[in-house]
Amino acid sequence: MPQPPPAEPGMREEEVDTPALLLDLDAFEHNLDTMAALLAPTGTKLRAHAKTHKSPVVALAQMRRGAVGQCVQKVAEAEALAWGGVPDILVSNEVVAPRKLARLAALSGIAKVAVCADDAAGIARIEEAAEAAGIRMTVLVEIDVGAGRCGVDPGPPAVALAERIASSPHLIFGGLQAYHGSAQHRRTKEERVAAIGFAAEGTRRTVEQLRQRGLACAIVGGAGTGTFALEAASGVWTEVQAGSYAFMDADYARNDDPPPFRQSLFVLAQVMSAPRAGVAVLDAGHKAVPTDSGLPLVHGFAGAVYAGASDEHGTLKGEGLPALGQKVRLVPGHCDPTVDRHDWYVGVRRGRVECVWPVAARGGMA
Amino acid sequence: MPQPPPAEPGMREEEVDTPALLLDLDAFEHNLDTMAALLAPTGTKLRAHAKTHKSPVVALAQMRRGAVGQCVQKVAEAEALAWGGVPDILVSNEVVAPRKLARLAALSGIAKVAVCADDAAGIARIEEAAEAAGIRMTVLVEIDVGAGRCGVDPGPPAVALAERIASSPHLIFGGLQAYHGSAQHRRTKEERVAAIGFAAEGTRRTVEQLRQRGLACAIVGGAGTGTFALEAASGVWTEVQAGSYAFMDADYARNDDPPPFRQSLFVLAQVMSAPRAGVAVLDAGHKAVPTDSGLPLVHGFAGAVYAGASDEHGTLKGEGLPALGQKVRLVPGHCDPTVDRHDWYVGVRRGRVECVWPVAARGGMA
Repeated sequence: MPQPPPAEPGMREEEVDTPALLLDLDAFEHNLDTMAALLAPTGTKLRAHAKTHKSPVVALAQMRRGAVGQCVQKVAEAEALAWGGVPDILVSNEVVAPRKLARLAALSGIAKVAVCADDAAGIARIEEAAEAAGIRMTVLVEIDVGAGRCGVDPGPPAVALAERIASSPHLIFGGLQAYHGSAQHRRTKEERVAAIGFAAEGTRRTVEQLRQRGLACAIVGGAGTGTFALEAASGVWTEVQAGSYAFMDADYARNDDPPPFRQSLFVLAQVMSAPRAGVAVLDAGHKAVPTDSGLPLVHGFAGAVYAGASDEHGTLKGEGLPALGQKVRLVPGHCDPTVDRHDWYVGVRRGRVECVWPVAARGGMA
Repeated sequence: MPQPPPAEPGMREEEVDTPALLLDLDAFEHNLDTMAALLAPTGTKLRAHAKTHKSPVVALAQMRRGAVGQCVQKVAEAEALAWGGVPDILVSNEVVAPRKLARLAALSGIAKVAVCADDAAGIARIEEAAEAAGIRMTVLVEIDVGAGRCGVDPGPPAVALAERIASSPHLIFGGLQAYHGSAQHRRTKEERVAAIGFAAEGTRRTVEQLRQRGLACAIVGGAGTGTFALEAASGVWTEVQAGSYAFMDADYARNDDPPPFRQSLFVLAQVMSAPRAGVAVLDAGHKAVPTDSGLPLVHGFAGAVYAGASDEHGTLKGEGLPALGQKVRLVPGHCDPTVDRHDWYVGVRRGRVECVWPVAARGGMA
């Protein structure tokens, strides 16, 4: 059963129940405005990644500032967005389960949807689902531009799949998915420039080979918060898929030359035990603030270190620690899984709760 | 909004939607029976920890086999259990937020509830909440027996808090919480024996000092799946609080002389991309199978290694990998946060779905 919201509009931040997912609305809006301003002169569009925020409210705020649509990683996310009024959704991932493809096809009555493929058998499954639903589904070919995860090689293997899509009666070839995930967190700018340069070369070559076969790429999508400026400047990508930029996290802040966004996402926690000098235990462990990209930081307590996470406890060590009962903001190590741990965003501005939004697509199902 | 269940009773396991939390019912029942049989001759009772399973269905199955009640770590978990018919619940943790204490007090009309404290100010807050609710609340003193997290030192500091509880008009002194969390995963038996020997010494001394002041410990609680046999044999603890034993995980399996339980909990995942020889990408990343205690193992594919987790992708490498579209069982690194990532248990036996149970207390709120 869903958890009740930890706050109501009008409350002071100190009254919010913990642990809670806090969104600093001034910083959040700054981030959305900044991304729109940075992309405007490049001509590259934003298709923000909703795997980060999982919320049609956030999606529509991005689209009001010029985003052309949203990316998702899962059909359940596509459903939550479409049901919440988002009109243009790309599943930037492979979907091979017939039941999921049927659900995706069912959304095409209320939103423009597209999906990726990297295998002929996968394309056949999408064709079957589209035929059964009596629709034409747009399919992008995912190419591996250096991340070594999903995707076929650039060039001829990608062209072969594109031709297969184009020749399937219920499919439309929609372009290329060319995302270099692991480049986002490479620490030095030089490493990121090199990685995206490599990705651009393979992508450009593939686009050109497709063009020679008469196959136009309506979308060439990719990029994340760590590299989007490079993809946008390349002239190769038509859409960037940054998601974390709206919230930021401790991991992105560790990049040198970090992206120009403010930390807007926090987990509010309370000191529930202060048993010894130099130790304060918070009610937010790794179930509330996942540690896959490192431990969280403690906002506003310069001498405090979040030294260890167990299921429901976070142990602070250091000097000048918060006192028993005091509430503190944690900066998550990784924003995406942190959002997914909570049912509600608590939007705050100048110390007051201004809004409470559901994390509509939270959860494990694909 | 809650996710729809990924399966229905009667389905074959291969038909279950992915990612899904799978419970092998034969192994699960074996584990519950085994724990009951191991504890019976010791006289020590089981108060199973519901932070692992978050389900009144599981709690009541444990109680039908002799468990005296349940532990929880959070008030939201206590609520889910009490609403689901569990009659005896200990919050084995500190609670200091007035709103949460009011919610806990409100449960006392339908269940026996108790909570822990490790600070005089915390005790004053519980007294206030109990008085406001017009009840008497049972409070245990948490002592730090070596884990270095919450809890006062054994001996006089614990006695002072117990006397404070006993002299509070709306509180009842309920005993000691003496849990050595970090001992559970110490790899060698010698390390675990030493840690629990140290914990037993401090706990025994504190019980004796309390007795001399006329304060009896109705409960002396502690222990987990890694050490419960030691606490049960010590004659010091009256209740053991194991939780993981019902499910098990890859981390417990790495202990030498691992506890005598079978792996009953799995995450079912599907290969959604097989782009190169030696690589298969699953639809279960760290959002579906958390990695705080290491990466999951691949069940039934001896040559396959789960080599990397991103948000929604798990990359398998090796030989004899599952094919595109095939479903595989993953053994979670850590069962507690894995359960908390899912809305539903899918209970399977001999290849068929037998039941679907909600993870009733899933979620971030305390």
